[in-house]
Amino acid sequence: MTADTATGLQLRSLIKKSGELELSLVRVPTPEPAADEVVVRVEAAPINPSDLGLLTGPADMSTAKASGSGDNIVITAKIPEMAMKAMAARLDESMPVGNEGAGVVIGTGSSDAAKALLGKTVAMIGGAMYSQYRVMKVQDCLPLPPGTTAAEGASCFVNPLTALGMVETMRREGHKALVHTAAASNLGQMLNKICLKDGIDLVNIVRSEEQAKLLRGIGAKYVCNSTAPAFLEDLTEALVATGATLAFDAIGGGKLAGQILTCMEIAINKTAKSYSRYGSNVHKQVYVYGGLDVRPIELNRAFGMAWGVGGWLLFPFLQKIGAADGARLRQRVAAELKTTFASHYTKVVSLQETLQLDNIAAYSKRATGEKFLIDPSKAG
Amino acid sequence: MTADTATGLQLRSLIKKSGELELSLVRVPTPEPAADEVVVRVEAAPINPSDLGLLTGPADMSTAKASGSGDNIVITAKIPEMAMKAMAARLDESMPVGNEGAGVVIGTGSSDAAKALLGKTVAMIGGAMYSQYRVMKVQDCLPLPPGTTAAEGASCFVNPLTALGMVETMRREGHKALVHTAAASNLGQMLNKICLKDGIDLVNIVRSEEQAKLLRGIGAKYVCNSTAPAFLEDLTEALVATGATLAFDAIGGGKLAGQILTCMEIAINKTAKSYSRYGSNVHKQVYVYGGLDVRPIELNRAFGMAWGVGGWLLFPFLQKIGAADGARLRQRVAAELKTTFASHYTKVVSLQETLQLDNIAAYSKRATGEKFLIDPSKAG
Repeated sequence: MTADTATGLQLRSLIKKSGELELSLVRVPTPEPAADEVVVRVEAAPINPSDLGLLTGPADMSTAKASGSGDNIVITAKIPEMAMKAMAARLDESMPVGNEGAGVVIGTGSSDAAKALLGKTVAMIGGAMYSQYRVMKVQDCLPLPPGTTAAEGASCFVNPLTALGMVETMRREGHKALVHTAAASNLGQMLNKICLKDGIDLVNIVRSEEQAKLLRGIGAKYVCNSTAPAFLEDLTEALVATGATLAFDAIGGGKLAGQILTCMEIAINKTAKSYSRYGSNVHKQVYVYGGLDVRPIELNRAFGMAWGVGGWLLFPFLQKIGAADGARLRQRVAAELKTTFASHYTKVVSLQETLQLDNIAAYSKRATGEKFLIDPSKAG
Repeated sequence: MTADTATGLQLRSLIKKSGELELSLVRVPTPEPAADEVVVRVEAAPINPSDLGLLTGPADMSTAKASGSGDNIVITAKIPEMAMKAMAARLDESMPVGNEGAGVVIGTGSSDAAKALLGKTVAMIGGAMYSQYRVMKVQDCLPLPPGTTAAEGASCFVNPLTALGMVETMRREGHKALVHTAAASNLGQMLNKICLKDGIDLVNIVRSEEQAKLLRGIGAKYVCNSTAPAFLEDLTEALVATGATLAFDAIGGGKLAGQILTCMEIAINKTAKSYSRYGSNVHKQVYVYGGLDVRPIELNRAFGMAWGVGGWLLFPFLQKIGAADGARLRQRVAAELKTTFASHYTKVVSLQETLQLDNIAAYSKRATGEKFLIDPSKAG
């Protein structure tokens, strides 16, 4: 490594015992790569909703204040007192952020496998991607096909594998069609492309007519707007048409999960022959994989006894299906990176710009269609 | 059959389109038994919470009125309008009630297997047990051990198999201890006896100090009173001690299911080594098998992403585990009928008395310790 790569900036998130979030850039030494490791100059790392959980956590970002500038910019924000209890395990620990990213290999360890990657653009998963330099094991790097930029490969893992994981879960658990909420998201658009390609019926739940139009524009057949007066009727109709009994929910708060189960039960009972006091015996499942709505989940249980609601996370899912099936999913992502799994970003920012208040206000909204890409190699 | 058994009284529950529940006794002909069937004079049938779902359904029993008397008694009660939608499939259909019961075989079909049961006391499951006579297939009768009364065998199936099903589910899904709510119930007492015998740690959640005393009296080690100020601390402590990550919940409404998951997560994290923004990766599960509290379930999701809440019912469970394992559970019930699986009743009533307002008021409360046994062979 040359002298100018011996250290690099890294974005850090710190929650203090006092109830304050502090975001800053720290200059950290770039470790010497071991034999089976490479040094990657990170050029693209998305801000996913799952990154915000660590980056801003439960902080109230409307209270965010900035001090300093350039590499020395520091953001502080207040954390509601009731949210502090759940933070016990990360208190006063300065944490690097960024699940996934992509960049160019600029240094390698002594092994042949490492040396073979020199100069290659690779995608990575493993945390601390909001850094200028990242040392990775060779086996944790996915070399991108020639002609693929770091920006194109930056979102190779989380959204594509989550969308594929939903379809895979549907098949493994014996359902025949899917429901997805916050369906106009980047992830939701990917899921539509997968389902269209694979011939799977997908019921999209969105929160506005614009989002509905966006999805219809990419070929979505079933789109229900949860803010429309006829939402429950529309949803039931789509569930009758598709037979979907599995939903993936990014909202995670309020009545939506229960409404989905209730409409599924009504749809199933439209073809039921006789009364059962326990409702239908068809299992209906909602997996909550996000928390766009932080209110409690409210389940009215008007959907019989054959139901489940639970958390769903990508990494435990990948562990469960095992290495071979995981590799199969990753191969599909690589093969369809510029089509099915193409991500769209509204803004590319440097590490310093990531900590500017106007940008924070934009990406911490978690608004559909608003997606930031950090380029740590970009000058302040 | 003799002339006086040619017809018999049967309790019926009817929900009318007008929004009214009607309970009455109907005189029905006793069918001639087929070759492989027997005629049983029902002498004991419990009123389980699961029977109340069909018997009184969602009716507001504080509005109950009686007319007529003796065999002609008719009870009417109002059903809240919002509950009527879920009743669509049973409207204007007069339904017999009573999941399980026991009685004496007084007539048989022509097969040897049927004839062998004549005069025997048998336990039965299959609905319509609140009847004077019940024709059953031989294979659906469980002959009781000599010296066992119908009253002793009346609750042979629902509670014993549900309690055993909880333990079986715990083992199959990889948990090491159990949590049970409404734990002082007949079912809860059985579950304590099973767990004590099998060396399984059981955390009992009750709603009063009397119930706590009752359970401690039969040897329960972990009892938490949900009305005590220190409930959440007590529960967390019991979860740390037992490592329980599976709960069976008879309450099904309000915050309790979420509180159990939250306390499980806190208990797990007491031994966690590092912070994960997604919480622990230990799966925590609550199965809701009852609905003592009809309010919505409220889940605050302060328990990470590795969680599930779902419905649990005995019959789908028995189907899932298959005939051989089901038979193994039934054999244990028969062997321990007078010990582990002994049921206690507060009152034995005739069919006519079942429809008296003071009795309805008592059993429809679903109060712990209050359990009715119907003896259809008892004179008015």
